[in-house]
Amino acid sequence: MNAAPEHLLGQSVAAIDTPALVLDLDAMARNLTHMAAYAQHHGVRLRPHAKMHKCGALAKMQMAAGAVGVCVQKTSEAEALAADGVSDIYISNEVIAPHKLQRVAALARSLQARGGRLAIAVDSAIGVANLAQALGKGVDLIDVFIELDVGQGRCGVAEPEDVLPLAQAIAAHPALRLAGLQAYQGSAQHLRTVAARHAALQVVIARVQQAQQLVSSAGLSLPLVTGAGSGTFGLEASSGVFGELQAGSYLFMDADYARNDPDPSQPSFEHALFIKSQVMSVSAAHVVVDAGHKSHAIDSGLPTVRSMSLHASGCSDEHTTLRPHGPDQPLPELGQTVWLIPGHCDPTVNLHNWMIGVRGGLDQGQVEQVLRVDARGALQ
Amino acid sequence: MNAAPEHLLGQSVAAIDTPALVLDLDAMARNLTHMAAYAQHHGVRLRPHAKMHKCGALAKMQMAAGAVGVCVQKTSEAEALAADGVSDIYISNEVIAPHKLQRVAALARSLQARGGRLAIAVDSAIGVANLAQALGKGVDLIDVFIELDVGQGRCGVAEPEDVLPLAQAIAAHPALRLAGLQAYQGSAQHLRTVAARHAALQVVIARVQQAQQLVSSAGLSLPLVTGAGSGTFGLEASSGVFGELQAGSYLFMDADYARNDPDPSQPSFEHALFIKSQVMSVSAAHVVVDAGHKSHAIDSGLPTVRSMSLHASGCSDEHTTLRPHGPDQPLPELGQTVWLIPGHCDPTVNLHNWMIGVRGGLDQGQVEQVLRVDARGALQ
Repeated sequence: MNAAPEHLLGQSVAAIDTPALVLDLDAMARNLTHMAAYAQHHGVRLRPHAKMHKCGALAKMQMAAGAVGVCVQKTSEAEALAADGVSDIYISNEVIAPHKLQRVAALARSLQARGGRLAIAVDSAIGVANLAQALGKGVDLIDVFIELDVGQGRCGVAEPEDVLPLAQAIAAHPALRLAGLQAYQGSAQHLRTVAARHAALQVVIARVQQAQQLVSSAGLSLPLVTGAGSGTFGLEASSGVFGELQAGSYLFMDADYARNDPDPSQPSFEHALFIKSQVMSVSAAHVVVDAGHKSHAIDSGLPTVRSMSLHASGCSDEHTTLRPHGPDQPLPELGQTVWLIPGHCDPTVNLHNWMIGVRGGLDQGQVEQVLRVDARGALQ
Repeated sequence: MNAAPEHLLGQSVAAIDTPALVLDLDAMARNLTHMAAYAQHHGVRLRPHAKMHKCGALAKMQMAAGAVGVCVQKTSEAEALAADGVSDIYISNEVIAPHKLQRVAALARSLQARGGRLAIAVDSAIGVANLAQALGKGVDLIDVFIELDVGQGRCGVAEPEDVLPLAQAIAAHPALRLAGLQAYQGSAQHLRTVAARHAALQVVIARVQQAQQLVSSAGLSLPLVTGAGSGTFGLEASSGVFGELQAGSYLFMDADYARNDPDPSQPSFEHALFIKSQVMSVSAAHVVVDAGHKSHAIDSGLPTVRSMSLHASGCSDEHTTLRPHGPDQPLPELGQTVWLIPGHCDPTVNLHNWMIGVRGGLDQGQVEQVLRVDARGALQ
């Protein structure tokens, strides 16, 4: 199952076996362009999160369209993308283990030697000390962002006043460059109303400004504030405090983001990521397709169905059960193709070794690209 | 990330990087022995579901301990395990696409040529016809089980009287051998009380008996009834109608099965599958470990925590947030190891390329085996 399905190149969509992860390359290209233009127009840097697609070719495509680099969450993701030629990578997450920080240090030196850059987030004095220890001597070997909890209640220092001691610790180590603040409010991405997202972002902005003031009062600065996801980036971009957007899902757009009320201040994006599935069992009131949650992640809800009046009523490892929206709606037939729109892009892509890129639409198009998920399973 | 972590062999548990999927080999061996003894004592065949571990070495270990073969859900899973030397495989699921049935046919011939056997489930006349077409001429090339919906509302013919026409269709094709009935009630596995599971199984048994009577009245027979999972197999084993148990999770046991009230008629099993994780962020009231739902599936609930008074309060792609059970309970320190017990074995294993087998316990033991997840991502 690990061989590239290159026999599909040039074939029609009908030739794609099920279940398979399929990219609508035309929709993806439009999403790419809209986001690049948006960031440029608003004068903010775009550093898309590559934890979403885990694919070196797509990271390089985003950078060619204007992104300054990419984010990842894991050291091994950074290594996989760097091996594929991506030169500017931010591990927007904490790494604590000294042996793993040795790998971070080696990657930072390697990227710098080829004109690139590695950055990382910290949220503890021990994290700073372990990182400095791993980097050793040298100047400005790695960019360090201090993560502040801005309402998600996950990682990050708890309060704006906790930022200053870390900023001072970073400034004390020549190998570390104090690059700014990591301020990501993940849960705000999925608040359904524009008003709720706006309210959450007011908290984010207030906390960021407070941290900035405390640090600058002490004679240090946080040059860049980085954060934002596909649900709220318009709010961060217009905040006046964020200089960099980390949104990743905009490229593929999942079913869960489509459940948000649209924000007229943000460009809208199309679904570009699909699971091609096949009806494998038919009953009087439901059908079952051959793709379950080993094909598409359900942590953010069940998939929706493209171009058919059907909804998912259940999902198990290898099956999704679909029912009609109304009593008089027809069911698809045994063997028919059903296109699922995954609830959540990031963990869905991570289930697959390959993405099949289709040009010319899902109904009449042809396979143009087979994209490797380079960092699939890169957990460490 | 795809290289085998063989450098770990002989190392202490402390050397395992996080997050990683770790097997307690001693606990697994006890689970293996208890289940084999149970099936033998009750005079039923054991055909464990290999969709759970997707590992040829573990399938062969189960067969060496008395299992007659294994089940899988997907053609590509069957191919992966056959390539690793597993000779008796049942695809306990429907396959509809003619091109995929060609692969099923090739595998059936190949296994038969080496003294093994392939079996498959059907639930439609089209499925039988497509299968017969793919098999072509020859006698008894594949065992065919008719799937009957016994209460799960997923695949399978809807009513016991729907079994007979399929039995007749199978009997009409020399290449197909009518092997019996597939009667799996997946949702019954997770009913919390023994009484609820017992009630669900009464429905299963009544429907199976009805199908058997209708088929035998027509002069045909369903030689074997196969089904059962780790939550209910004691009920199927003592039913008098089931001849084969498909339970798979017993080998690893996940957190969700531990939420069932124990059934005194079944042997109890130990947790043998863990995620080794590390505390990467500490706050006043919670800690965050470096393993999220890209490391452990959460479709059946959040993981539990081994040997610590902590519970998971949230989980995202790469993070799990843990809180103490009570206000005075201590939190682990930054960098400390935390062992998570995944909510659901099957999709958890499918996230990983390797399982690290530890002998001598998770605290003091050593790495004895690195097991490849041969059929990881084998979706088709």
